[in-house]
Amino acid sequence: MHLRLLSLGFGNVGRALAAMLAAKADELRDRHDLTLSFTGIVTRSTGPVIFEEDVSAAHLVETAWPDGRVGAPVPPLLGDVLALIRQSPADVVLELTPLNPHSGQPAIDHIRAALATGKHVVTANKGPIAYAYRELRALAREHGVALRFESTVMDGTPLFGMAEACLPATTIHGFRGLLNSTSNYVLGRMAAGETLEQAVAGAQRLGIAEADPSNDLEGWDGAVKATVLANVLMDADIRPGDVDRSGLGAEAMRAARTALAPGETLKQLVVAGRSDSTGVTRASVRLAALPPSDFFAHLSGSETALMLRTDTMQDLTLIEGEGGPGQTAFGLVADLVAIARA
Amino acid sequence: MHLRLLSLGFGNVGRALAAMLAAKADELRDRHDLTLSFTGIVTRSTGPVIFEEDVSAAHLVETAWPDGRVGAPVPPLLGDVLALIRQSPADVVLELTPLNPHSGQPAIDHIRAALATGKHVVTANKGPIAYAYRELRALAREHGVALRFESTVMDGTPLFGMAEACLPATTIHGFRGLLNSTSNYVLGRMAAGETLEQAVAGAQRLGIAEADPSNDLEGWDGAVKATVLANVLMDADIRPGDVDRSGLGAEAMRAARTALAPGETLKQLVVAGRSDSTGVTRASVRLAALPPSDFFAHLSGSETALMLRTDTMQDLTLIEGEGGPGQTAFGLVADLVAIARA
Repeated sequence: MHLRLLSLGFGNVGRALAAMLAAKADELRDRHDLTLSFTGIVTRSTGPVIFEEDVSAAHLVETAWPDGRVGAPVPPLLGDVLALIRQSPADVVLELTPLNPHSGQPAIDHIRAALATGKHVVTANKGPIAYAYRELRALAREHGVALRFESTVMDGTPLFGMAEACLPATTIHGFRGLLNSTSNYVLGRMAAGETLEQAVAGAQRLGIAEADPSNDLEGWDGAVKATVLANVLMDADIRPGDVDRSGLGAEAMRAARTALAPGETLKQLVVAGRSDSTGVTRASVRLAALPPSDFFAHLSGSETALMLRTDTMQDLTLIEGEGGPGQTAFGLVADLVAIARA
Repeated sequence: MHLRLLSLGFGNVGRALAAMLAAKADELRDRHDLTLSFTGIVTRSTGPVIFEEDVSAAHLVETAWPDGRVGAPVPPLLGDVLALIRQSPADVVLELTPLNPHSGQPAIDHIRAALATGKHVVTANKGPIAYAYRELRALAREHGVALRFESTVMDGTPLFGMAEACLPATTIHGFRGLLNSTSNYVLGRMAAGETLEQAVAGAQRLGIAEADPSNDLEGWDGAVKATVLANVLMDADIRPGDVDRSGLGAEAMRAARTALAPGETLKQLVVAGRSDSTGVTRASVRLAALPPSDFFAHLSGSETALMLRTDTMQDLTLIEGEGGPGQTAFGLVADLVAIARA
C-alpha cells in the first residue's frame, strides 16, 4: 500500500517524522508493505506548498526542507487551508499544528475537512480529540476512514494502540498519570534546591518548557490529556474545562513544596475515575505529595507514566523514558502502519 | 466466530479462565464476535475428559468442574494425550500444564501435535516457547494456524501483543526486568527484617511461592522468561541454559543482603542485550543492588516490570501490579480474541 501525506505543520515533529520515515523506509516497505510520499506541506512560514510531484521523506531530509525548497507556494490558497485540505489528493492528513488548549481550533476544522472528504487523519495535536472526539469519530466512521492519535499523550507510547489491540473485553475504571514533563521536571529541580524561576529557565534552555510555561504549570496541558484519555479509554464525554485544576500554578508550587513532609515527593498528578454509583467520570490535575512507597514518586522529571485501572489486568502501567520529537514521530508512524493494516 | 477449546491442564489458571469467559461472554460475543465452548479437558487427576456435547465456560463454573463432572473420562486414551490432541475436534488447544523449566516437555509435544493437525495453540506454559519457539512458529505457519503465548511472561500483561501490534518498524536492542515475583517478594521481606526462611514460608502461605521455591530463587524461572523474551522480541535463538544465572540461590541472597550499601535495594533482575559488534544476544538473571535513583528499586515485591530498549521509543516500560491467575487468564482471553480477529 502507498499512502500520500499532506502535512499541516512541519516543525520539530514533522522533521523527526521525515527522518524516521527515511531511515525506516526499507523496513516499512518489506515488513509492513507500506510506502509513503508527501503531496504537500503547510506551515506558518511557508504557507501551503503543493509539490508538483510527490516527494519522499528522504528527499525532505536531504534538502532540509523548506531550506532547499521543493515545490512552490500556492498563493491563491494562502489563508484557505480548508479548501486545500478538501482538494488535496492525499490519502492521509497529518495534523501537526500547535495545540490550542482552550478550544482545539483551528485543528478541529482541519480534521473535519479531511474526514468529510474521505481522507484518513493522524493527529499529534490533542486539541481536536479533547474537544471533539465523538463528533470526529462519528465523521470518520461515516466516511469509512481512520482517525488516529497515538502521539497525543506520552508521545508515541502505545496507549491507545494497546487499549485497542491488546485489551479486549476490558473496562478501564480510571487512571493516574504523570503526563506533563515540564511541570515534573521543574518540581524535580525545585526538590534539588533551585527556585521555580531557575528551574523554569533551565527547562527552557533544554527545550522542555515553552517561552510561556503557564499551560504546563497551570495544568492546561494535563487537563487536555486527561480529557483525551477519559473520553477515548473510558468512553466519557468531558471537556478540558471540566477537569479540576485547583491548586496549581507558581504560587501553589512554592507553597506545596514548603508543606511537604520528609520523604514525600511533589508531582503534578493526573487522576480520573468513574463513580460506581453515578457512572460519571471525574478527572483532576493537582499537585500531589507522593509517599516513598509510591513508585511514581521515584520517576524522574522527564519520565512520563500512566497507570490504568482495569477489571481484567487490575493495575497496568506504561512508562516512557525521556521523550521528544522522535518519540512523537514514532506514534505517527505507528498510526500510519495501523491505517495500512486495516 | 465460534472457537472450540481443548484444555490441557485445568488448575487455578483454567478455573480463572472459565470464570472470566463466563463473566465476559456477552462482551466477547457483542464486541468481538466471539463465542467459545470446551470440547474436553485433560488434568492429572481426571485424565482426559471429552464432553459428549461441548460445554460453556459458565457451565464449568456452575458445576465447579470437575466436582460436578460433565462428561466422562475416556479410558482408552488415558496416557495417550497426543492421540487425544490429534483426534480432537477443537479449534484451539490451551496448553496450561505445569512448566518443566529444564526441557519444556511434554508441553512441546502437546503443541506439536496440535499445530500439526491444524489447531491453533494458546499456551500459558512458557517451556515450549523457551525451548522450541522457532520450530513451533514454523510449524504453525506451515499449517496456517496461530501460536500465541501472551500469558507466559508477566501473566497477561500485553508484552507480545504490544510488540506485534503497536511497535512497527521497531528494533528491540535489549531489556531489563523484574520478572520473578517470588524472589522479589522474598527479598522485600528480607529487607523488612525477616530471615530467608521466614520470607519463603510467608510467600508459600500467600500462594506466591511453590513448595519447592528453588526454580524461583535459583533463577530458572527468570532464565526461562528471559529466553522467551529474547527469542520472541529480539529474534535471538538461545535456551534457558545459555542464560547466566551466577550468584543466585539462598546463600547468595543472604550474602548480597549483607553487602548492600545504604539506600540500595536488592532485586532479582533479568537483563538482556545484543552486542553491537557481534550481534549476539546475551541474557542474565542476577541479584542486583539497585540505587535509589532506579525506579525498579521502588517496585513492591509483587509487582513485575519489563523495560524494553528500542530504537524508536527509546526506553518503554510495562509494569503489572500484583498478578495472579486472573491476569494469566486475561492473557489467554486476549490471545483467543486475537485468533478470532486474524
